[in-house]
Amino acid sequence: MKKVFRNKPIGIAPGTLLYTGEKRLDKPILSSIDYGPAHHGVEILSSPQPCRELIARDSVSWINLTGLHQVELVQQLGEIFNINALVLEDILNTQHLPKFEDCDAAVLFIFTLFHRDDQTRQITPEQISMLIGPTWLLTFQEVPEDVFDQLRLRLQRASGRIRHRGTDYLGYAILDTVVDSYLHLIAGLEEDLERLEETVFSNPKADDLQKIHAHKRQVLVLRRSLRPLQIAVEEFRQLDSELLHDETQPFLRDLADHLSRAVDAVDALRDANAGLLELYLSLANQKLNETMKILTIMASLFIPLTFIAGIYGMNFEFMPELKWPWAYPALWLVFLVVASGMLWFFKRKKWF
Amino acid sequence: MKKVFRNKPIGIAPGTLLYTGEKRLDKPILSSIDYGPAHHGVEILSSPQPCRELIARDSVSWINLTGLHQVELVQQLGEIFNINALVLEDILNTQHLPKFEDCDAAVLFIFTLFHRDDQTRQITPEQISMLIGPTWLLTFQEVPEDVFDQLRLRLQRASGRIRHRGTDYLGYAILDTVVDSYLHLIAGLEEDLERLEETVFSNPKADDLQKIHAHKRQVLVLRRSLRPLQIAVEEFRQLDSELLHDETQPFLRDLADHLSRAVDAVDALRDANAGLLELYLSLANQKLNETMKILTIMASLFIPLTFIAGIYGMNFEFMPELKWPWAYPALWLVFLVVASGMLWFFKRKKWF
Amino acid sequence: MKKVFRNKPIGIAPGTLLYTGEKRLDKPILSSIDYGPAHHGVEILSSPQPCRELIARDSVSWINLTGLHQVELVQQLGEIFNINALVLEDILNTQHLPKFEDCDAAVLFIFTLFHRDDQTRQITPEQISMLIGPTWLLTFQEVPEDVFDQLRLRLQRASGRIRHRGTDYLGYAILDTVVDSYLHLIAGLEEDLERLEETVFSNPKADDLQKIHAHKRQVLVLRRSLRPLQIAVEEFRQLDSELLHDETQPFLRDLADHLSRAVDAVDALRDANAGLLELYLSLANQKLNETMKILTIMASLFIPLTFIAGIYGMNFEFMPELKWPWAYPALWLVFLVVASGMLWFFKRKKWF
Amino acid sequence: MKKVFRNKPIGIAPGTLLYTGEKRLDKPILSSIDYGPAHHGVEILSSPQPCRELIARDSVSWINLTGLHQVELVQQLGEIFNINALVLEDILNTQHLPKFEDCDAAVLFIFTLFHRDDQTRQITPEQISMLIGPTWLLTFQEVPEDVFDQLRLRLQRASGRIRHRGTDYLGYAILDTVVDSYLHLIAGLEEDLERLEETVFSNPKADDLQKIHAHKRQVLVLRRSLRPLQIAVEEFRQLDSELLHDETQPFLRDLADHLSRAVDAVDALRDANAGLLELYLSLANQKLNETMKILTIMASLFIPLTFIAGIYGMNFEFMPELKWPWAYPALWLVFLVVASGMLWFFKRKKWF
Amino acid sequence: MKKVFRNKPIGIAPGTLLYTGEKRLDKPILSSIDYGPAHHGVEILSSPQPCRELIARDSVSWINLTGLHQVELVQQLGEIFNINALVLEDILNTQHLPKFEDCDAAVLFIFTLFHRDDQTRQITPEQISMLIGPTWLLTFQEVPEDVFDQLRLRLQRASGRIRHRGTDYLGYAILDTVVDSYLHLIAGLEEDLERLEETVFSNPKADDLQKIHAHKRQVLVLRRSLRPLQIAVEEFRQLDSELLHDETQPFLRDLADHLSRAVDAVDALRDANAGLLELYLSLANQKLNETMKILTIMASLFIPLTFIAGIYGMNFEFMPELKWPWAYPALWLVFLVVASGMLWFFKRKKWF
Repeated sequence: MKKVFRNKPIGIAPGTLLYTGEKRLDKPILSSIDYGPAHHGVEILSSPQPCRELIARDSVSWINLTGLHQVELVQQLGEIFNINALVLEDILNTQHLPKFEDCDAAVLFIFTLFHRDDQTRQITPEQISMLIGPTWLLTFQEVPEDVFDQLRLRLQRASGRIRHRGTDYLGYAILDTVVDSYLHLIAGLEEDLERLEETVFSNPKADDLQKIHAHKRQVLVLRRSLRPLQIAVEEFRQLDSELLHDETQPFLRDLADHLSRAVDAVDALRDANAGLLELYLSLANQKLNETMKILTIMASLFIPLTFIAGIYGMNFEFMPELKWPWAYPALWLVFLVVASGMLWFFKRKKWF
Repeated sequence: MKKVFRNKPIGIAPGTLLYTGEKRLDKPILSSIDYGPAHHGVEILSSPQPCRELIARDSVSWINLTGLHQVELVQQLGEIFNINALVLEDILNTQHLPKFEDCDAAVLFIFTLFHRDDQTRQITPEQISMLIGPTWLLTFQEVPEDVFDQLRLRLQRASGRIRHRGTDYLGYAILDTVVDSYLHLIAGLEEDLERLEETVFSNPKADDLQKIHAHKRQVLVLRRSLRPLQIAVEEFRQLDSELLHDETQPFLRDLADHLSRAVDAVDALRDANAGLLELYLSLANQKLNETMKILTIMASLFIPLTFIAGIYGMNFEFMPELKWPWAYPALWLVFLVVASGMLWFFKRKKWF
Repeated sequence: MKKVFRNKPIGIAPGTLLYTGEKRLDKPILSSIDYGPAHHGVEILSSPQPCRELIARDSVSWINLTGLHQVELVQQLGEIFNINALVLEDILNTQHLPKFEDCDAAVLFIFTLFHRDDQTRQITPEQISMLIGPTWLLTFQEVPEDVFDQLRLRLQRASGRIRHRGTDYLGYAILDTVVDSYLHLIAGLEEDLERLEETVFSNPKADDLQKIHAHKRQVLVLRRSLRPLQIAVEEFRQLDSELLHDETQPFLRDLADHLSRAVDAVDALRDANAGLLELYLSLANQKLNETMKILTIMASLFIPLTFIAGIYGMNFEFMPELKWPWAYPALWLVFLVVASGMLWFFKRKKWF
Repeated sequence: MKKVFRNKPIGIAPGTLLYTGEKRLDKPILSSIDYGPAHHGVEILSSPQPCRELIARDSVSWINLTGLHQVELVQQLGEIFNINALVLEDILNTQHLPKFEDCDAAVLFIFTLFHRDDQTRQITPEQISMLIGPTWLLTFQEVPEDVFDQLRLRLQRASGRIRHRGTDYLGYAILDTVVDSYLHLIAGLEEDLERLEETVFSNPKADDLQKIHAHKRQVLVLRRSLRPLQIAVEEFRQLDSELLHDETQPFLRDLADHLSRAVDAVDALRDANAGLLELYLSLANQKLNETMKILTIMASLFIPLTFIAGIYGMNFEFMPELKWPWAYPALWLVFLVVASGMLWFFKRKKWF
Repeated sequence: MKKVFRNKPIGIAPGTLLYTGEKRLDKPILSSIDYGPAHHGVEILSSPQPCRELIARDSVSWINLTGLHQVELVQQLGEIFNINALVLEDILNTQHLPKFEDCDAAVLFIFTLFHRDDQTRQITPEQISMLIGPTWLLTFQEVPEDVFDQLRLRLQRASGRIRHRGTDYLGYAILDTVVDSYLHLIAGLEEDLERLEETVFSNPKADDLQKIHAHKRQVLVLRRSLRPLQIAVEEFRQLDSELLHDETQPFLRDLADHLSRAVDAVDALRDANAGLLELYLSLANQKLNETMKILTIMASLFIPLTFIAGIYGMNFEFMPELKWPWAYPALWLVFLVVASGMLWFFKRKKWF
């Protein structure tokens, strides 16, 4: 269960900055990438002050803050980039749903990145906030990411399309990377489900039920993030602002396309998961039926015979049958007839 | 089950004032907080008359009535603040759904606050009605609340933003407190569910079923309150009146955001609860299967053996086997073969 | 199951008048209440003719016909009040859904009243048709009603608001009474459900299942009537006609509010009923599990012991154990060890 | 299952005429009814040619073709009445969903009539196509119908409203007859369900499950036809053409009303059917519980007793109890105590 | 499970061409059909260059590429026909949902064709991309298709309508063929379901459950493709471009009609499949009930009798009954009375 609330007390003033996530990093890292068609520079900043200079420049600057637990750092960035306190509150409140907001001078994107542990197959969500300004782009992360490494490499190549475009294209490229990571995650979930399906079909084990349940929860968590992101991207596409250039539009349409593919695949996963659970339960039901048939056959076959044997185990003095020499073989015949009759009855009922 | 109707008789005239809640308080308490950028005063009023003077003032006055069973007190307030009889009826009828209504001179908000007993984990709803006028804000509560204490503290601090704003911001602050209390409640329900999940996964007990059911009902009660409140806030945001200032809009958007987060979390809770019940039943099913397997194995193993032993317990005079010296050890061999065959059969069926 | 069709043959001309309900009354009763701010008169009419005079008057006349099986009476009223044959057909066809229709000179309301037998807790629907004209209001009932008695009393009081308003307010008052009766009915259904819930939680009986099912059907019947009535009231509110005065609008909004409260409560009832059934079945499942555990424990405990006892009940001549003096007490030890082992096994499985 | 496709090969040109239904009639029958306020004539036509003359006349002509397997006949009619090849293809393709199409000179209605065999209670669908032109109305049927006989009688009566109206009213009358036949069918299904409900409540039989399933499929087939017909009628009502006169509008509204009543009744049927299945399964579950209780009581009562009897059936030489004179009556006491203990245990568990 | 993602790495630049399907063909085949009212020519092209000349011509050219694993071939075609890199990426990314896109100079259709293996009854999806330009139409397939053979034959016939129309009609004809193939596929699935239904009703086998599950997955896969295709066709119909002629509109409406028929049939299939699974489980439940009844009857009948026989098998010295001469026959009477009582009890419970 994703917690929506951690420790923000009831009734405090709006805009009060409080980081509601866990501290997952020792020291926040602030870095910048500044690039244009002709230049590209990476810097690790020890304080937010140099950002003022980056804003002044014409070239595109991507400033990234990893680790949000030093609230004053976020506050200083807010002052430098002139960000509303309510927006800063949203950035620090890491249990947010994906959303898009037009803050006049910049646009805000909040979305969730999912990290999947390959061993435990656990999904951990991480909130990423992105502010797209005229010449700068600000991202806030909770933990260091390697998902954007490929993108950083593309920024280094002077020939790349991205070097000639503005902050809106950079924002698109970041969103595209995120959606790609969703598609990878979905592919992983699809593989898991296929493996589960094979197990259920061949030899269902006792903990398959828990595995199906855990898989379903991962799919639901993913789904809950995708729908609002779809809405956010749609709102970005319809943004009427100088921040968004016409030449970025086809790429955003492509992005929306990929997103709707992801949504469709997640819906398919959810249906398939539900179908698998249904199948598991139906198969379990079938097995119960089979078990009961075996029990019933065994009991119906031997309980009457045991009774008959019990009769002639009685110690009455006057039981004429006990004296008859052919009684014992005759009784064997009775045993056989009763057992065959039972078996014929079950055969006719198509039990085996 | 929340009762919708207590004792209003069929067919009485509309606007007839009748309190339909329980009397939960001995004596109603009427209090006022009057504040502006430069002053702040709290008063306990013994009669509604001083309110007339508060209306006349320019500063913001928050008048609160706790305890609604003295209908005439509500009626007097209605006359002083010029409130429609139908609105007063709504305020007294404490089984109302959350709603927003534009009453020209003022706007009406009705919403539900939930009190949760930490021991019994029971939720008790309380209807709160709020009327926002130009310079005054009226609230009606059924029981004394400490949920607004933090807000009252903020009103005392001269530096707070709230001291410089109008009644619309005060109304927003009250709603924000309520939504915060929802988020707290949801966090509590999430914790309960997590604890239930752990129990079900490790060692389900007989009363877990009732606990899951009780949890679900709490979630449904909460959900039934959230949706209409969302609509009410939306209507307030679109209100075209002097009562609502432009500078309050971003805060209302923030509020709507929090509300949609709450709705999303409640939906997730409902899904998780349904998933847990499903899991519980599936696990119970699995256990039944296991139980039946044990029974079938035990019965299939020993019933045939008992029958064989029964045969040689018979007292026929002519049973040649009884005389054979090696018959008894041979029979032990038969016992072992039959039992092994049975075990091999169940092994091949992958029963253990 | 509510029959939609009784005996209207296929293909007859539209507007052919046929009463499709049961004859529940010996003789139809036609009565009128004529009132204004200053006067109030009640009359039982032996023929529809005096109605012509009532139409001519300026004051408000409420004419009520109880019992629809004398089709010619309805036809005469239709002629006097100038009602379309298709509308008369609707009035006589008592399996109609609630609806609103603007017939130019008048507006038609069709709705359902539910009578609940306190003993059998059975709900019987009754269709009521109401035509609101400029100075007259016509109602058609199948059986005599006492639900409107309170309203008739209010008409007698000269001080009442209703005496100073037109036919639209009288129509509203009738609808309000009907919605109040729905709320009463819902309160009754809520009580029933609560009682059922208590029984299911403490000691479920065999016929609880039927009771839950019967309750569900009552809720569904009620629900099927509420939704179209909501639409009808909405259409009435948006009516652009002289028949509907502006001063009646707030009352209609209040009515719509009550209706949506009723709809919400019925939805909650339906959910609660579904939840109760689910709980009942889950508890039954749990009991089955428990039953099977008892059976399995008893069988697993005693079947192996019986087999061992059976061995030494055999009559072989050469069974050395039978001669050993300590064999019998030793066997008791074996019995105890086997039984203890079994109990330890079930204990470890947390079966008790 | 209604087949959507019979034998039309993939990739043939659109407008290629192929009858995809079964041949259910030896020879197609082409007949015409020509009428006006003053005259009425019925004719059986041996070829489509006389239709040219009927078109030329001012009076209303209803031409009906029963049996569609002679494709050339349909083609000739198409030429005479100037019908598009795509429309003719729709008419011949008898697995169509109900639809309405405005073909400029005429309007097309396709709908389904259901024949119910009173013995087998099987429903057979039949597609009827209707083209409404300015002075003519064309209907295409697969089998001879007696459902329209009543309508043909009304056409003979000179006083009937239908004799004074145009083709739109005739079209309405045909649709009205069809909707009436739906209501009859629904009434039949309601009766079936009521009978099934009684059986399930009193004494469920093994084949009730199949009957409930068959009933559900009939309801679903009917429902699948009603929704598109509702849309078609709505489109007809909003048709802006000289073909549709204003005076027919109230009748179409009445028709739409009846249709929505039918849809509502079918939905109610579907819910009731689902509820019945749920009840059947719940009752079956309850019975299983009861069966298992009986088994558990019998086994728990006698298996321990049999074990005790087994002990004293052993043949050990040294069993002191066997010699005690009061041992046998004492054992009876043990038997009684054990059995009573068991019964008391089950009594306390409220098993009987 | 259809994989959405194969091997496209996270974060690469958009428009990077990568074929994400399997290589199902040795060598790609590029062919062209060039036709007009008076001429028709088929060519196998060894390189894309001759296409330049085809574009220049006025007649309609249908160029088809089968096999997409030679990415450079697709790239060359893209250059010749002036296709956007993002569109080429979509064409190569063969896990796309059906979609329509207006690319100014041409329109793009992506849809899925399903191949069904008649033996295994497995469905394999194949993505087909279609670009409709002013005088040319480009199709991209993964494997050689014979589904379009009939269409190619129609192109050879000089009299065919298709020879006189433009590329939009050719596009329509291709889509129509695809929808026809869907209808064929649906007919096959309907047959499968009917066969399954018969088996389940008469003699359900253990693997029917898997078969129902597999059938459901096929239906879901098909359904997931149909809905977006419906949207795509709708968008094509509303296209405001010279590419789409008015005379093609009626054919597109016909196509939309067929598609909605297919969607309806698939929905009906899904419902029928769900109903069948429900029935299967209900029948299995019924059988379990029956099995338990047999077991209970057998156990209840013989376990008490065996106990009685066990009593008189005991070896106490003082058991007076053993000496009575009529004790043995009397005991038989007891056996008969107990057994008859049991049978009467079960008879009264209507167990047989």
